[in-house]
Amino acid sequence: MTVNINGSEKRDEHGNRLENRGRLLVKCPDGPGIVAALSKFLFEQGANIIESSQYTSDPAGGTFFIRIEFDCESLADKRQKMETDFETLAEKFKMDYRFAYGGDRKRTAIFVSKEPHCLRELLWEWQSGDLQTDIAFVAGNHEDTRGIVESLGIPFHYIPANKDIRKQVEEEQTRLVEEYDIDVIVLARYMQILTPEFVERYPNKIINIHHSFLPAFIGARPYERAYNRGVKLIGATSHYVTNDLDEGPIIEQDIERVDHRDHAADLKKIGRSIERRVLARAVKWHLEDRIIVHDNKTIVFH
Amino acid sequence: MTVNINGSEKRDEHGNRLENRGRLLVKCPDGPGIVAALSKFLFEQGANIIESSQYTSDPAGGTFFIRIEFDCESLADKRQKMETDFETLAEKFKMDYRFAYGGDRKRTAIFVSKEPHCLRELLWEWQSGDLQTDIAFVAGNHEDTRGIVESLGIPFHYIPANKDIRKQVEEEQTRLVEEYDIDVIVLARYMQILTPEFVERYPNKIINIHHSFLPAFIGARPYERAYNRGVKLIGATSHYVTNDLDEGPIIEQDIERVDHRDHAADLKKIGRSIERRVLARAVKWHLEDRIIVHDNKTIVFH
Amino acid sequence: MTVNINGSEKRDEHGNRLENRGRLLVKCPDGPGIVAALSKFLFEQGANIIESSQYTSDPAGGTFFIRIEFDCESLADKRQKMETDFETLAEKFKMDYRFAYGGDRKRTAIFVSKEPHCLRELLWEWQSGDLQTDIAFVAGNHEDTRGIVESLGIPFHYIPANKDIRKQVEEEQTRLVEEYDIDVIVLARYMQILTPEFVERYPNKIINIHHSFLPAFIGARPYERAYNRGVKLIGATSHYVTNDLDEGPIIEQDIERVDHRDHAADLKKIGRSIERRVLARAVKWHLEDRIIVHDNKTIVFH
Amino acid sequence: MTVNINGSEKRDEHGNRLENRGRLLVKCPDGPGIVAALSKFLFEQGANIIESSQYTSDPAGGTFFIRIEFDCESLADKRQKMETDFETLAEKFKMDYRFAYGGDRKRTAIFVSKEPHCLRELLWEWQSGDLQTDIAFVAGNHEDTRGIVESLGIPFHYIPANKDIRKQVEEEQTRLVEEYDIDVIVLARYMQILTPEFVERYPNKIINIHHSFLPAFIGARPYERAYNRGVKLIGATSHYVTNDLDEGPIIEQDIERVDHRDHAADLKKIGRSIERRVLARAVKWHLEDRIIVHDNKTIVFH
Repeated sequence: MTVNINGSEKRDEHGNRLENRGRLLVKCPDGPGIVAALSKFLFEQGANIIESSQYTSDPAGGTFFIRIEFDCESLADKRQKMETDFETLAEKFKMDYRFAYGGDRKRTAIFVSKEPHCLRELLWEWQSGDLQTDIAFVAGNHEDTRGIVESLGIPFHYIPANKDIRKQVEEEQTRLVEEYDIDVIVLARYMQILTPEFVERYPNKIINIHHSFLPAFIGARPYERAYNRGVKLIGATSHYVTNDLDEGPIIEQDIERVDHRDHAADLKKIGRSIERRVLARAVKWHLEDRIIVHDNKTIVFH
Repeated sequence: MTVNINGSEKRDEHGNRLENRGRLLVKCPDGPGIVAALSKFLFEQGANIIESSQYTSDPAGGTFFIRIEFDCESLADKRQKMETDFETLAEKFKMDYRFAYGGDRKRTAIFVSKEPHCLRELLWEWQSGDLQTDIAFVAGNHEDTRGIVESLGIPFHYIPANKDIRKQVEEEQTRLVEEYDIDVIVLARYMQILTPEFVERYPNKIINIHHSFLPAFIGARPYERAYNRGVKLIGATSHYVTNDLDEGPIIEQDIERVDHRDHAADLKKIGRSIERRVLARAVKWHLEDRIIVHDNKTIVFH
Repeated sequence: MTVNINGSEKRDEHGNRLENRGRLLVKCPDGPGIVAALSKFLFEQGANIIESSQYTSDPAGGTFFIRIEFDCESLADKRQKMETDFETLAEKFKMDYRFAYGGDRKRTAIFVSKEPHCLRELLWEWQSGDLQTDIAFVAGNHEDTRGIVESLGIPFHYIPANKDIRKQVEEEQTRLVEEYDIDVIVLARYMQILTPEFVERYPNKIINIHHSFLPAFIGARPYERAYNRGVKLIGATSHYVTNDLDEGPIIEQDIERVDHRDHAADLKKIGRSIERRVLARAVKWHLEDRIIVHDNKTIVFH
Repeated sequence: MTVNINGSEKRDEHGNRLENRGRLLVKCPDGPGIVAALSKFLFEQGANIIESSQYTSDPAGGTFFIRIEFDCESLADKRQKMETDFETLAEKFKMDYRFAYGGDRKRTAIFVSKEPHCLRELLWEWQSGDLQTDIAFVAGNHEDTRGIVESLGIPFHYIPANKDIRKQVEEEQTRLVEEYDIDVIVLARYMQILTPEFVERYPNKIINIHHSFLPAFIGARPYERAYNRGVKLIGATSHYVTNDLDEGPIIEQDIERVDHRDHAADLKKIGRSIERRVLARAVKWHLEDRIIVHDNKTIVFH
């Protein structure tokens, strides 16, 4: 299996080493000696740190965050021991942490409605090798995108949805998510509100794209409202889904300039290209384990 | 007097011709023959069109907007006749219009509080010859900026303000605005709310800078709220002041990227540079008669 | 046939009026009365000006440029007479001009090599209705993109190319361009140098994308050279092809930030997304007749 | 003395702790255990890591770079011992390194010619507390900026310069640099070429601003050449000065859009605002010890 972590290939031409790549993300109360302890631990496990980024929310007693990418010979064999050994350290510093491995490709499900542009961008990036994931299935509440999806050999599940049958719909979706062993769900302009039960089942694992630079124009029809307000910039926001509508932790935002000649229909058209790239970036960073959620915000390690 | 319309010098090296430069801005119901009638009129008056931009809100019966910049020999002598002659045409097409002249430098008043950055940017642009206006006076409700202002030979008026004495303050401000014959009032982070009476006296003549990408974070303390929401972009908005707080016609907006390392104090610092350039652009466009207000929006002819 | 000029639909919901849409582009020595003469002419022909932009390179005796978009009842019937009538006016002012019509969809050929990203972006924009053209055929010197092209019902012609058989290749290409009655040729990362004969046959009708912010990194391997130079921005440039390599009139450029972590392979990847949007914009503006070439530069009327 | 490292105040409200802030920058051949050794060292010295960024040019045997910002009680007393103790470690890993301290404000000299905009931006940022340095003196080869400089209490030295007296000029400059104990020299549009002797005396300590997005328009008159080429973007580049003209390691670049209406004079005006911010950022990052030069490139840790 030629396993691959995104970004690895740029620095490493030796395919055989990629499955030796690991990542460690840690969040804990700040204090002296954390970096020393972590780097000593990895050194003793035979792991070489390739890249690390650290951030402390407040030097006078805040929260410590770190993302470490490392190389380790025979990582597949050693990882279980590594994780077990790590528990002592994690307990000592009260760490919230996770390990991720080059050998474990994340499995993605995409939920979509009629508009294909965000789905297409994701599929495109995936085809180009820029999204390091297996796209396990696409679920649509309309049939419009079946052709695109199936032409790439990806299963398409048609699950008609409306708010009256939300429960059945989500039962079916949950069944698929379990069956396909999904790690991340991307709402690529899915346009349906998920129930609290569904959202709570997948915390920080559902990524949405909202078609405004939140918190401006929370809710429906943002382009019409942007047009009516006469803004000179329109934007899009990708965020993790929580049960506060459009209020989840923001992962990425971007904007483009518009002017008086752009009617609501033009804003939608311009907006599509912003949505595409904002969602693609957010998904990419999630897949590369670059994001730690803290309170209602994200730390994104580029 | 070597009068000068901003932007003229770039296309015209002959100083003597600048006082022959005029601008005509028109808004009227769309219909056939408007451009023909306008250009025929100017041609017959001996004016040569240098630059023109037109926009129609809806080809199927919307509103017609045009900005024409023209050259005319001995314009100072001819302009009164030109305006009188224009009345027939204006009446025929139900035009809302205005003429502006290279020989009439607009007179600006700047209202300021403690923070100097927006004031400074305007003074700087003005010193560099990029803001074609006479800065007639600066009024501050604090003394902090007196030194900068007076060092440039501009009168500084200290008018302490708070909401309990708003009436007296505005009487004094109005007196100064009349005395100095002011055309445009710039609120360069003035931080005080104006009364409806004051605002109504100067429609589309008061320009404000708001420190968020409106309509996000309307109201007070936008940077703190932006920090708390975890946005990845912060912005600023320049708009004409109306009696709906932060809801007036938007002239210009811009943003910059921020990330999790930027605390509220950093956002303020980054925000200052956005505020500076957004306000400076808005004031420049106003001074160059590039803006037509329509409904609650602006048409800005670049 | 529901003919359509790009951008029309945003302002006009009535499909039947679109074939009545025309555009007039004019370049001539500046002088008094040109706008008046043009607008009088259109008014007398029964045409209503929807949008116009004018620019004069130097008010003291430069070149006058204008783009007018107009509506005219039964334009299909009237256009021949309109063009004939225009000749007198054109002669008087020494105008270089062209008419374009909503009823005449331009016909595009795309030349491509192995890399599909620019081709894909164009096909996507075209499918979304954002590129108002008929894509008549795609010619590739490799077979890689045949599948994408044919799946959309567009003919794909495989013409292997290298510099030794350039003459035969171009004979075949010319034959296809004539046969398909092509208006514009887009080099979507075609990677082959065209002969002077071919280029001269289609002046200002061949659009190329170069993968650097020209004039930096003219010639081959710009991303490697950008990496070696340690630039903090990389870019792409779309231009009309002339016989000075990479020196033709620039239509559009854009850039993105990179940093020390981005190796040459990363720059290529980031560059692809810049190339996509820069080429798509340039092609769109060409199709909407927004570009006038003058000396070795472009006037682009947005 | 209330010493202050830029950026510190945002995370630390306790003024007394700032002189306990240090930074360590390291470059060495990559290998296992470097981070562990560094963090163990700092921990044992009683230093707490506040922020760290690491980068390895090539995981398969490249160069390792790290920037660590740390807090340490009584750092002023301990730093000499810390540096001595560090030598063993540095030798073991063949480290090229430097320590910097919150208690040591860097001393800056600015060289300027006639145009004041870059100088002004630096002075402004410095006045706002955003540039953590002492501006020890300004040297001008013209008198134009004396007023601005002296009004802030900074010594201004007038040293007329031209290429015939380059040697004497640089002797005088060198004398001042030594006398004022200068750490960094900023060429704020100084417009004179320095001799190889002068440049070699201050490696990676002379920061220049070039008014183009290098390597486009290397050399003189870049705005005129940009105008003639018809580019759609203009830019500026800040770099360390080496003896290859305009070829030194790039620190920062930025651009703005221009169009056909912008003549060379407009490009200069627009360019000034790009130059201002690009130079100010580069100087800020240098003062915050965020830059490591490697080969002819910069690693900038944000």
